[in-house]
Amino acid sequence: MLKLYYSKGSSAVAAHILLEEIGAPYETKEIPIAKGAHLSPDFLRINPKGRVPVLETPDGVLTENPAILEYIAAINPDVKLLPEGAFAQGEARALCAYLCATAHVAFAHKQRGARWADDDSAIHAMAAKVPQNLAECAEFLEKHGIKGPWALGSEFSFVDPYLFLMGRWAGMNNVPLDGYPKLAAHQSAMRDRASTQTVLERHGLA
Amino acid sequence: MLKLYYSKGSSAVAAHILLEEIGAPYETKEIPIAKGAHLSPDFLRINPKGRVPVLETPDGVLTENPAILEYIAAINPDVKLLPEGAFAQGEARALCAYLCATAHVAFAHKQRGARWADDDSAIHAMAAKVPQNLAECAEFLEKHGIKGPWALGSEFSFVDPYLFLMGRWAGMNNVPLDGYPKLAAHQSAMRDRASTQTVLERHGLA
Repeated sequence: MLKLYYSKGSSAVAAHILLEEIGAPYETKEIPIAKGAHLSPDFLRINPKGRVPVLETPDGVLTENPAILEYIAAINPDVKLLPEGAFAQGEARALCAYLCATAHVAFAHKQRGARWADDDSAIHAMAAKVPQNLAECAEFLEKHGIKGPWALGSEFSFVDPYLFLMGRWAGMNNVPLDGYPKLAAHQSAMRDRASTQTVLERHGLA
Repeated sequence: MLKLYYSKGSSAVAAHILLEEIGAPYETKEIPIAKGAHLSPDFLRINPKGRVPVLETPDGVLTENPAILEYIAAINPDVKLLPEGAFAQGEARALCAYLCATAHVAFAHKQRGARWADDDSAIHAMAAKVPQNLAECAEFLEKHGIKGPWALGSEFSFVDPYLFLMGRWAGMNNVPLDGYPKLAAHQSAMRDRASTQTVLERHGLA
C-alpha cells in the first residue's frame, strides 16, 4: 500500500488530493515541520532532503512532487490522470517543472529565505519581493501555462492538484487570484471536488 | 525535425547532448542571452518565459529541461534512454526535479539574484552563499542522488546530460567535484562521450 508522509498545509496537499482521487486505500504519516519532525534522524533516513511529500511505494521511496504525482497517475491507468502521447505528457511535465522550480521556489523565498542567504536584511528583501513574483507566476499561468478549465484542457489530470497549490501560495502573500479568471475558476473547481474537501479538512485548511 | 533553441553555455547544453546521442538530424537556433536575444519579441512569442532551452517539435513547443529531456527519450525508444517501469521512471523524474528546482536554482542565485530581491546588498548576499549551497547539492547527489556510474545506475539515461551540468555550476563557483568520487567519475565519463565533445565545442566550452 502507498504511504504518504506529509506536513499539514505543505505542498504534500497535492499528492494527498491525488491519492483521494484514486479511491484506493493508502496510509499517511504526519511529519509536522513546525515541530522539526522533518529533521529527525528517523525521517532523514527516509528522505535525506528533510522535505515532504515523500511517497513510500512497494518498490521504494519517491520524493519531489512532479515525480510523486506522475507515479500515482502512472500506476492507476484506469483513472486516466496522465494525458496520452509523448508531447501531451511533455506539456504536463513542463507545467510541473514550472510549478516546482519557478512558482514554488518564488513562494519559498517568503519563509525559507535562509536557504539562499545568511543575513537578515537579505532574507527580508527576498520576502518583500515574493508577492510581485507570485503575481508574475499567476500572470504567466493564466496567459500561457494552463488551458482551462483544467490545467491541461478538458480533462482533469495529475497536474491539477499541483496547480491548486498556487491558490495557497498566492493567498498567503495577498495576491488574490480574482484577477486571473482561469486560475480563479480552477481553484473553485478544485474546491468542489470531494477529494480536495477531504484533504483540506485533514490539513486543517477547510 | 526537432529544433533546439539554445544559448551557449546555458543549461541547454543538456538537451543538446541528448540530441547528439540520438544521432538523428536536428536543427538549432542560437539565442544569445548575453545579447538579450531571449527577451526579443520574436523569441518571447516562442517562449513567453524568455528562457532556454526550448524544443520545437512537430506537435508544438516544449520548455523546461525535465520535460524536454524526457520527451527526447520517449520519442526515441530504440535508444533506450528512459528506464522501464513506473518506479524507475519516478526515480528519474525525482532526480530531474532536484536538479531543476534545487541545484539549478541554487546556481541561479549567483547571477540571477535580481529575480528574488531588488536591492544590491541582498543580491550580493545571495551570490555569496552559492558555493555553500552547491557543495551541499554535490554532497546530496554523491550520497543519495545518483547510483553510479550513471545517474540511474548501470545504464546511461536522459538524466545524465542534465546531471553533467552540475560540473559547470559547481566549477563556476569554485566547488571542485574532486571530493565527490561518483560525481567526478560521472563528469569524466560524460566528457569521454562524442556527443558531449561535439556540444562543448559548439558552445565554446571545449
